[in-house]
Amino acid sequence: MQQTPPESAHDPNDAWDSPRGLTAHREAVRTALAARTPRTETVPLTAALHRSLARDAVAGIALPPFDNSQMDGFAAASADTPGRLPAAATIAAGLVPAPLAPGTAAPIMTGAPVPAGADTVVPVEDTRDGCFDVAEVVLPASAPGRFVRPAGSDVAVGDTVLTAGTRLGPAALGLLAALGRTDVTVRARPRVLVCTGGDEVVLPGQPLPEGRIYDANTALLHAVLTGCGAEVCATRLVADSPDVFAGSLHADIAAHDPDLVVTSGGISAGRFEVVRSALAAEPAVRFGSVAMQPGGPQGLGVLRGGIPIVCLPGNPVSTWVSAVLLLGPALAEVWGTTGPTARQARLETTVTPLAAKTQIRRGTRVPAAPDRVDVLPGTSSHLLAEAARAEVLVLVPPGPEPLPAGTAVQVVDL
Amino acid sequence: MQQTPPESAHDPNDAWDSPRGLTAHREAVRTALAARTPRTETVPLTAALHRSLARDAVAGIALPPFDNSQMDGFAAASADTPGRLPAAATIAAGLVPAPLAPGTAAPIMTGAPVPAGADTVVPVEDTRDGCFDVAEVVLPASAPGRFVRPAGSDVAVGDTVLTAGTRLGPAALGLLAALGRTDVTVRARPRVLVCTGGDEVVLPGQPLPEGRIYDANTALLHAVLTGCGAEVCATRLVADSPDVFAGSLHADIAAHDPDLVVTSGGISAGRFEVVRSALAAEPAVRFGSVAMQPGGPQGLGVLRGGIPIVCLPGNPVSTWVSAVLLLGPALAEVWGTTGPTARQARLETTVTPLAAKTQIRRGTRVPAAPDRVDVLPGTSSHLLAEAARAEVLVLVPPGPEPLPAGTAVQVVDL
Repeated sequence: MQQTPPESAHDPNDAWDSPRGLTAHREAVRTALAARTPRTETVPLTAALHRSLARDAVAGIALPPFDNSQMDGFAAASADTPGRLPAAATIAAGLVPAPLAPGTAAPIMTGAPVPAGADTVVPVEDTRDGCFDVAEVVLPASAPGRFVRPAGSDVAVGDTVLTAGTRLGPAALGLLAALGRTDVTVRARPRVLVCTGGDEVVLPGQPLPEGRIYDANTALLHAVLTGCGAEVCATRLVADSPDVFAGSLHADIAAHDPDLVVTSGGISAGRFEVVRSALAAEPAVRFGSVAMQPGGPQGLGVLRGGIPIVCLPGNPVSTWVSAVLLLGPALAEVWGTTGPTARQARLETTVTPLAAKTQIRRGTRVPAAPDRVDVLPGTSSHLLAEAARAEVLVLVPPGPEPLPAGTAVQVVDL
Repeated sequence: MQQTPPESAHDPNDAWDSPRGLTAHREAVRTALAARTPRTETVPLTAALHRSLARDAVAGIALPPFDNSQMDGFAAASADTPGRLPAAATIAAGLVPAPLAPGTAAPIMTGAPVPAGADTVVPVEDTRDGCFDVAEVVLPASAPGRFVRPAGSDVAVGDTVLTAGTRLGPAALGLLAALGRTDVTVRARPRVLVCTGGDEVVLPGQPLPEGRIYDANTALLHAVLTGCGAEVCATRLVADSPDVFAGSLHADIAAHDPDLVVTSGGISAGRFEVVRSALAAEPAVRFGSVAMQPGGPQGLGVLRGGIPIVCLPGNPVSTWVSAVLLLGPALAEVWGTTGPTARQARLETTVTPLAAKTQIRRGTRVPAAPDRVDVLPGTSSHLLAEAARAEVLVLVPPGPEPLPAGTAVQVVDL
């Protein structure tokens, strides 16, 4: 079980009042991220799915643009129904019809404009002969407006159809297309520089020397960040040299202009905490601990160049859990990306909490009861295979007593 | 309210026993889609998020690859604890340590290999001095294995760590990277040719002549399909000429090799049903009605060239609802894409069902009660602005009586 690191004599940075809670730290992450002003960009509708609308969308045309038929049928004056009426020329969708001659009925197709002089549509299957190939049509009584979609009944000119901040789903994109739009201004994807490393870490695909491990954290962070709708503008694997790290960080920032730097590892209480050491001279970057497990050691701040930096712990499960619970929601708030939202669920079995920290357990949904979750057995932050099987993160609040089955807890769907 | 189209004398195609239910038709869509055998492809881990694993993933190395320390602390023989031990050389992560001299304790960093001769780790904060800079360290009693992560405790060589069909989330991708993998074989994205049209339809961005409307369906279908993880390989806007449609369809299939063709519109009981007419000579394509509203008219089959085709109705809300409820789940079953899943929720207010059709109402979540949904007032399939505000589709089963507030219904989150 991870312990709160002591404020050792080696600590080059100020620390916050530690440990602080998960919610307070997430708010601090949000504040740091807001140091960079979100940008907007205009993209084609085909690239805008799930993006956050930057400005209210106002209708320049009405929908429908004209009165049109809701059915395949006959357009007539309601005053002429019921009645036997000569059939006028067929009105197909896409035509601009002539006014309906008084005392006639025009075959009309779904979506076609209702002609002047007609105010009702009788579906073809409700006519006596049930087909269009008639010289005269026998119509039942039909009320004014029946099966007519009035111009503007969906959207009037000048309506605000979508408000700024709307997450653009298929129907919203369809609506913008229906209004004649080909592109839309959305909040830009935040550009994230991802720095992982450590002397023990080897890039996947390379031979694995003794005593080394493959880098899992770049893949984890890339997936969490892109899954939220952020853009990973560069990744960097760094060795345990503070000078090398500091140098590559400044070079990468100059080269890639990130909106955020995310690091993993090198922030705890060991002798070789590369990130913590390299950032010792940064006045607005602090390290400390958060009352959560895994993910206790955390660092956070704004670099002198104005770029926010979030320093996550290096164990893969700690990195992942921190990214999901801290980075995802903060990015969603500041940049309008699609962060995970917590929901309430009930424990399927008894769970023993930690005394003073929120424990983030990996869990699965109970198939027959979607509001119930089962926690997986492992708690250690190196158990990546178990993490890969998880469907939810379960936030177990601190406390002295076991939480019985049925206890309501916060969960985040993965 | 949309009616079941009659089997008119103009119908050039066989029809199924109509109307059939939503579930039966979804199963028919699945069967049609399965005419094309899903392919697999190998992609970098950075392109594999949310993709479906094609084959079981088996570990080629153990995780961790070696016994390593869970803490920053001192590695020792448990038999030497409690005790005052001379400090040996520091073991950093990435080093291959020499065996621990008997009767000594080595400063060891999180993740570093535990040396031969040591079987326990004492966290630095649990030592008498609480720091690493000591010539002799005073250790409390520490049990064998404490704060040591044994080799293979996460994954053993030969373990099946992920099974075929797993949807790859961040932790799964991190796990593959931890095993040294740089790429992964997943089910390919189905390639979809999207055909929309009608003489009344104008591409967004063009001037809108009188009697015309902008094409919303291409944007809707593109968003639903790409949101599921399908690839829209081409889109085609066609006029109401069956010959032109048939010609462009065959040319587009030859040019783009789709796994699926999706059309919208032109399949009802009107005089100018372009899709239905153009496919009259296709022996394995049928049209009929499904007991749902909107979305009643539907077409389905396999073209003579072996390509599945799904013909959706043309009203934007009908197209959208059909794509979400029919195409999404069928693609997920056949191709492993991420289709929407239905869940149960309760109605917040009384809802009046249709007599004999499942009505698909647009709804919103009740913020304070995630298992409750409010239906929006509109039911007409041209109300796209209302659809854009919806958060859920609510499947209201047919029946003679109003469903009171609190009734359990199926909903699909949008």
